[in-house]
Order: sequence, then structure tokens, then C-alpha cells
Amino acid sequence: MAEEREAISMASSLPPPPQVPMELHAENRSKLIRSLREHLTSSSRPLKGFGGEEKTRYCTDHVELFRQESYFAYLFGVKEPGFYGAIDISNGKSILFAPRLPADYAVWLGEIKQLSYFKEMYMVNMVCYTDEIVEVLRTHHGGSEKPLLFLLYGLNTDSNNFSKPAELKEMEKFETDLSTLHPILTECRIIKSDLELSLIQYANDISSEAHVEVMRKTRAGMKEYQLESIFLHHIYMYGGCRHCSYTCICATGENSSILHYGHAAAPNDRTLKDGDMALLDMGAEYNFYGSDITCSFPVNGKFTSDQRLIYYAVLKAHDAVISAMKPGVSWLDMHKLAERTILESLKIGGIIIGDVDDMMVERIGAVFMPHGLGHFLGIDTHDPGGYTKEMERPKEPGLRSLRTIRELQEGMVITVEPGCYFIDALLVPAMENPNTSKFFCHKEIARFKSFGGVRIESDVHVTSNGAENLTKCPRETWEIEAVMAGASWPLLDKSSIH
Amino acid sequence: MAEEREAISMASSLPPPPQVPMELHAENRSKLIRSLREHLTSSSRPLKGFGGEEKTRYCTDHVELFRQESYFAYLFGVKEPGFYGAIDISNGKSILFAPRLPADYAVWLGEIKQLSYFKEMYMVNMVCYTDEIVEVLRTHHGGSEKPLLFLLYGLNTDSNNFSKPAELKEMEKFETDLSTLHPILTECRIIKSDLELSLIQYANDISSEAHVEVMRKTRAGMKEYQLESIFLHHIYMYGGCRHCSYTCICATGENSSILHYGHAAAPNDRTLKDGDMALLDMGAEYNFYGSDITCSFPVNGKFTSDQRLIYYAVLKAHDAVISAMKPGVSWLDMHKLAERTILESLKIGGIIIGDVDDMMVERIGAVFMPHGLGHFLGIDTHDPGGYTKEMERPKEPGLRSLRTIRELQEGMVITVEPGCYFIDALLVPAMENPNTSKFFCHKEIARFKSFGGVRIESDVHVTSNGAENLTKCPRETWEIEAVMAGASWPLLDKSSIH
Ligand SMILES: [Mn+2]
Ligand SMILES: [Mn+2]
Repeated sequence: MAEEREAISMASSLPPPPQVPMELHAENRSKLIRSLREHLTSSSRPLKGFGGEEKTRYCTDHVELFRQESYFAYLFGVKEPGFYGAIDISNGKSILFAPRLPADYAVWLGEIKQLSYFKEMYMVNMVCYTDEIVEVLRTHHGGSEKPLLFLLYGLNTDSNNFSKPAELKEMEKFETDLSTLHPILTECRIIKSDLELSLIQYANDISSEAHVEVMRKTRAGMKEYQLESIFLHHIYMYGGCRHCSYTCICATGENSSILHYGHAAAPNDRTLKDGDMALLDMGAEYNFYGSDITCSFPVNGKFTSDQRLIYYAVLKAHDAVISAMKPGVSWLDMHKLAERTILESLKIGGIIIGDVDDMMVERIGAVFMPHGLGHFLGIDTHDPGGYTKEMERPKEPGLRSLRTIRELQEGMVITVEPGCYFIDALLVPAMENPNTSKFFCHKEIARFKSFGGVRIESDVHVTSNGAENLTKCPRETWEIEAVMAGASWPLLDKSSIH
Repeated sequence: MAEEREAISMASSLPPPPQVPMELHAENRSKLIRSLREHLTSSSRPLKGFGGEEKTRYCTDHVELFRQESYFAYLFGVKEPGFYGAIDISNGKSILFAPRLPADYAVWLGEIKQLSYFKEMYMVNMVCYTDEIVEVLRTHHGGSEKPLLFLLYGLNTDSNNFSKPAELKEMEKFETDLSTLHPILTECRIIKSDLELSLIQYANDISSEAHVEVMRKTRAGMKEYQLESIFLHHIYMYGGCRHCSYTCICATGENSSILHYGHAAAPNDRTLKDGDMALLDMGAEYNFYGSDITCSFPVNGKFTSDQRLIYYAVLKAHDAVISAMKPGVSWLDMHKLAERTILESLKIGGIIIGDVDDMMVERIGAVFMPHGLGHFLGIDTHDPGGYTKEMERPKEPGLRSLRTIRELQEGMVITVEPGCYFIDALLVPAMENPNTSKFFCHKEIARFKSFGGVRIESDVHVTSNGAENLTKCPRETWEIEAVMAGASWPLLDKSSIH
């Protein structure tokens, strides 16, 4: 019967998932070495990063699927758990330390690979076992004094967690420096190389396509999680992406005003209704590099005039920001540009009243968009480096949610994700507050009580003289309506639909 | 254009995911109270469990999708993180402690639910905030002495980890007992109630159907992870299962002899070849309760004679064990029955030579099946309780891998998962060993060098006088071939195919 089986059709126009060149991570190491050398005066200093370990769930033997720690992934690209890594700043040589696996690993978990396999695979100068770290680092050092190790320790300004420095058994045999490495390595990660960009582009391509696939299949009566399932299937089946950059947010109706919907206590389990807006924030990760994309569209495939009003308020902000982006521009200014653009549209739509400058002073923009305009994107969805030690986080509503306030630089990848939401917890107090009540057209706003919200999020690469949008989803309402009615994407003949 | 959109067809014959009655968890609590009362003499002792917390990945703000700790899920069914729970043994009353959420939770994460919501949802007698635990437990106690708390602390015999007892700020205000609760609660979990069984049956139904879907779509040239993606999509899209019981093992060709293939260092990334066997070990979880199912089949849809030989060796063992299972039967004996059945088939197939009793003494069965025959299944894939403190783990190859050696009891759910693998790391030493070399037909075995292995795994419920297989996958080779050629499942007309 085997001969009767038909080939299955591939529902993707993209080429198969790319091979990832390990030069990418070698380049990352070189960049770090250059940065450190600029910063330091003396020579011959090995430095150490460390990789993550597999974890079991609570007390059980349930092993969560391992995903490498991001700084370690940046430098070494190692997929396997339990590794350590070191780079000698004086000569640029890199060493990986692999766990020594027990003999029965071969029975339960697979081939025990030779050290030479890892040396070739990850393009490092030397691979030893983790139980040899102290000896190797001391021998390698050569000198008579204690070798100086730069360990990774520092604040993640998104989580307010500190990275955990590597722990060695005989730490007293080394001098350690916990402050130098983190800010320099973080700074390296902010500017993406061409090889990094191509992975972020790939993650964007497969995710954009998956978003289109979800739009096409969305119907009233479905569950939100079914949209998540379609997305996950598309990026894995056709894109080889086993991980997402973050838990999918599949918010419809009122839920679309819950900014981080989709977690275990709000698990994408609502039934879609005719007339709902859907706000889907989902992004694939490929070889550690991620994407972060939000599409908003009407569940039934056709925008109402109210939906169109809010949608275009956000889309105009999205487009205005991308048009204004270039090196030297302040991200704080971009956030304010988005706010102002949204407020102007809402004013034209009769939802708010009064002078937009006055609204800006009173932070009315933050009532409708309480989150920041965007964040760095890379190996982490919220890639680090948004604030250096010297930068102070703004205190005003909206602005204080910004994950960075830096000036844009060529090579940054940052999300542009304006949104406009009707959130009772913010709207009600603002409409009751005597200072701000006057700006709101209470009657109009009542109509949006269960509207939820709209967010449009693209991943944008800052170029030498502007910005390039890496995300390729339908954005105009007529594009969305055409795709949801079955048109191919990109649209073949715009004139016939427009 | 909206009116032109067609309904999408649902590729599942199952009813929609069931509503889960919270009586299930209330019953679990009652059972624990009864067990504890039988065990204890004095009265009025509150006891405490505790729930899990959300975790971020390393130092980032990447939040892993939360899954409740299993003992806590058993007693309370709480989906949300950060909860604590207590049960008063004297009066049977249960209390949940909910985290006090900050006001901006409503903006970022969703509606802040009233305590009454949780009281109704989880059918407990009282809900307070976690910051009130000490006060509530002391007040509730009434007496003048320090209240006695039974905390959950004990060994998981699969992971060798200890469960972490709940931590309270003012622990000195209580007497604590760390030894009583764990074995009694573990014993409760071993025998499944009808409501628990119906969830395990549901997880089995959707997973069985998904396995069939994967069989139908498997083709040479695909990647192993595409089979994983088809499975994951089916259980989520049509079954509402966001979690799997464990990371999918999608092993083809030689990889099918790697027992726990599919993890990050061996990530289901091989390309399927014509002539390969596939061994797919995948199971959905629904409302905490899991399934654990393995199907083995030829990638091209048609068994070769060698594949049929090994497959039937395993299927005969699988069927023989299920036929023999009933209360009072020793699981160790079932393991040996499976070994013996496999060895007899291999002997008939000319792969091994000699007296099967002698082979049993020399533990030749463990060369082909190094893992245990099966394990309890429930809220954990490897549900706890396999060994009590009094039981000693066998030391012989194969037997020492058994996750339990208990006698079967009515209400247990245990996996039956015999396998037969050609694992160089075990076969080569056994064939070189002068004591065991004689049993192997070296020439025949050479043919199986890259064969990999076969495993057939079903989830089986021990009934009052026998056993019921909850898993409904095609098992006979002709059933598999028919389904892979496009026949519906269950087969409509067996006579025409057989
Ligand atoms: Mn984002
Ligand atoms: Mn199993």
C-alpha cells in the first residue's frame, strides 16, 4: 500500500530552514574581545561565561526542554546544556568546557560526542571537560600570579534580576572581576551583525507568514488557543522553529486590552465572537534569535468603522515612527511621536477633545498606550541594554514603561509596537480626575467599553540613514480584508482590490 | 468580503474538550483527609501544601509558561501561580491562599479576581491572601498551643529529588511535621478515581487520534520535528491541550534506539528515509492529567520482514502483559514476562540462540530492553509512589530501571511499554562477554546495526479483575499499514483489509 501514499503539500512559500553558520558566534566573540581590549590596558586575562543547565519541574524527573542562556548563546551558540566557556583576551582564543557524560548517556540520551566534535561544531580553539576548568584556566594563564577572571554579573533592566556569575569549585585560585564584563558584553549585543540580522529576518519571515495563515483561518466560534496552535504549527512545521520568543498572546474581544494576556492564569481560552477584534502577539525563535510581531484584525474579516478608526490611529503611529527612525534619533521622542499621532487620530474620531499639546502634558497618551513604544530584540525578546547605569528611567506614566530611552544607532533592532486600548483600570480614573476628565468624550468612549485594543508591532532594523521593517504582514485594512478573504500574500494585484 | 469566508473543517471526530468538574480535586482532598485520619490519632491539625511560582528564564524577564506543581494540582486544581493551600484534618475544611496582586496587574495581566471567584471556582471553604497565612492558620486552629502543620517533604523515587516544603515567614509559631504527609498523599495519588480516569482517558483519546494523524502524514524526506509539530497541533487545535506530558520523542532510523531522544541536544532534527522505522513517544496533558503513548511504524507505510519480526516481538509482549494484568500481580513479574516474550520471538527469528531460561538468568532481555516495563501515570508522566521506603530497588540490569516493583491494585494506571532495541553500547559488550556471547547470532544481528528499535506503549487501567487499555492506536501491522494508506481509524471493515 505504501506506493499509493501521496506526497503531502507544503503550505509555505519559504525555502527550508537555513543552516546557521557558526561564524556568527565566532564573530560575536571577536567583537567582545575588541571591546574588552579597548576598555582594558593590561593583557593576558582569560574571561569566563557559563551556560545553562537543564532543570526538572519541581521535585519530579520531568525535564523542561532546555534553552541556552542568552549571553552564553550569543558567544558560543551551544545548544547543549551543562557547558562552560572561556575566552582569553590576550590571544583571542576560546575554550569550551563540555560536561563529562556517564557511559549510560549513550543508551538513554544519545551518542556521546567527542570533544573534537564540539571543537569543530562551535569553531572554538579548544574543548575540555568541565571538571578540568580550574586546571586548564590556570595552566593556560601561564603567569605565576592568580589568573584574573572576568565573570558575567549584572542587572537585567527589564526583569530587575541579576545574572548569576559562573561558580567554580576553587574560586580562591583566581582573581575575579564581576563588574567589567556585563556592560561591555551587553553593549556588544545591542548592535547586530549581518549574520545576526539574517536570522532575525528569517524568524520574521516565517512568523509573518504564520500570522497570515492565522488570519486566513480565523473564524467566530473558534477558541483563541486554536489561533495559537495554527501559529505554532506553521513556524515549527515549515520553519523548524521549536521555540517561540515568548508565550503567544491570542487576545480577542475585551481581552485585547490585557497587554500580557495568554499566560497560565489567562490562557487564550475565550471563544471568538463575530464583531470582535483579535490582537495576536506571536513570534518564532530560530537558533536563539527571535521575532516579536503583533497583528490586529477583525475576527470576521471586515473592519467596522469604529475598528477602522482605532486601527488607523495605531497604524499611523507605527508608520510615522518607522519613517522618522534613523541613527541619532531619541527613542523617547519616538514614543512621544507615537502618542501624539494616536491622540490626533482619536481627536479627529471624536473620542477625545481639546488641545493635543495639553494632552501630552497631562500624559493622556499613556491612558490609551500604557506600555513603551518598543524594545531591543535579539536573542532575548526584550534584548538587554535598554538602560546603562548612567541613564535614569523616566517617572511619568507611559514613559516609565519604556524599556529603553537610548538614541538609535545603526545596527540596532528594535520593535515598534504602538497600541491603543480601552482599559477600564486606566480610563475610569482618568475620566474621573478633574485635571483630565475634560479631554474625554464620555459618550463616545462608552461605545468602546468592550472594544479591547489594537496593537501593531513590527521589528525594525536601524540602517545608516533610516530604518528597515523586517516584518512583512498585511498592515493596511484593505490588505488584511483581502488576505482574510483568501487573497495570496503579498497581494498579487493591488489595483484590483484597492 | 467577510460573508465569503468558508467555515474551516475540524479534523477531529472527538467532541470538544470537556469541562473539568472541580469535584475531582475536592474528592482528592477528601481522600487525603480519610487517609490521614486513619493514620493519625489526635485531632484538629491543619495541614499545608503549597503551589508553584512562575519562573523567569535565567536573568531575563522571559516568563516560562507556568504549570502547577503536581501535588498541589492534585489537591486543589489551581491553574494560577503563587497560591498556597491548607486543609484542616479535624473538620475537613480547605483554605486557599491567593497572592495579593498589585493594581497594575489589571493593565498587564488581566482582571484581578475576587477571592470569592477562587472560592467558587476551586470549591474550597475559604480563600484568603498569602500574606494572611500565619494569622489564618493560627486563628483557625483555635487552641492555645502551637498549631501542628504537616508539610510536604519527601523523595521522588524517579528523580531522586526531594519536594520542597512550604516556607512561611513565621515558621517558629508552628509545630511542623515533615514526614507524615508525603507518603500518605503519594499513596492517595496511586489509585485513580473515576473522575481522574476520565481525564486520563480524554488525554489518551486525543493523543491516540493525533498519533494516527501523524502516521497518515509521515513521508520519507520529512524532518522528525515535523511529526512532532503535527502531533502538537492536533492535540492543541482539536483537544485544547496546551501542554504535553513530556517532550516529544520523534526518533527515526538509528535514533529510535535512543530511549529519551528528542531533548535539546538531540532535537528531533533528522531527515526521514525510506526504509526507516519511526518510534514516536508523545502524549498530551489535559487539566494536569497526562497520557504517554508510543507508536512504532515504518516511515514508508509498509513493514519489511525484519521490521515485522521485531515489531511483533514487542507487540506480543505488550499484549501478553495486558492480558496478565490484574490486582495482585507483581510488576516485576510483568517485566519478566515481557522480557521472556521478546526473547522467545527473537529466538524464533534466529537473532538469538539457546535456552530462554538461561538467557533470563544472564539478563539478556536487558540488552534488548534496558528500560523498565512501565510506570504509574497521572498528573506526572512518571507518577510518584513507585517505591515506598520499605521497598528495595532491584540491582540487576533492566530490573533496576523499573520505576516500580509493586503489586498491581485496582485503580492504578500504569504504562505498558515493552521495547526491543539494537543499542551498540549494550550489544557490543554483551556479544564480547564470554558468558553471554553464545546467545547472540552475530551474523543476523549485524543486519540490524542501524535498525534502531521498536517500542509500543499503552496506558493501562487496572480493573477489579483485569486491565483496560485506555490507548486506542492501530497496533497490528495490518492496521498500521491500512491507516497509513488512508483508511479511517478505527477501521470500518476489518475483513476487507485483513
Ligand atoms: Mn514586543
Ligand atoms: Mn512511558
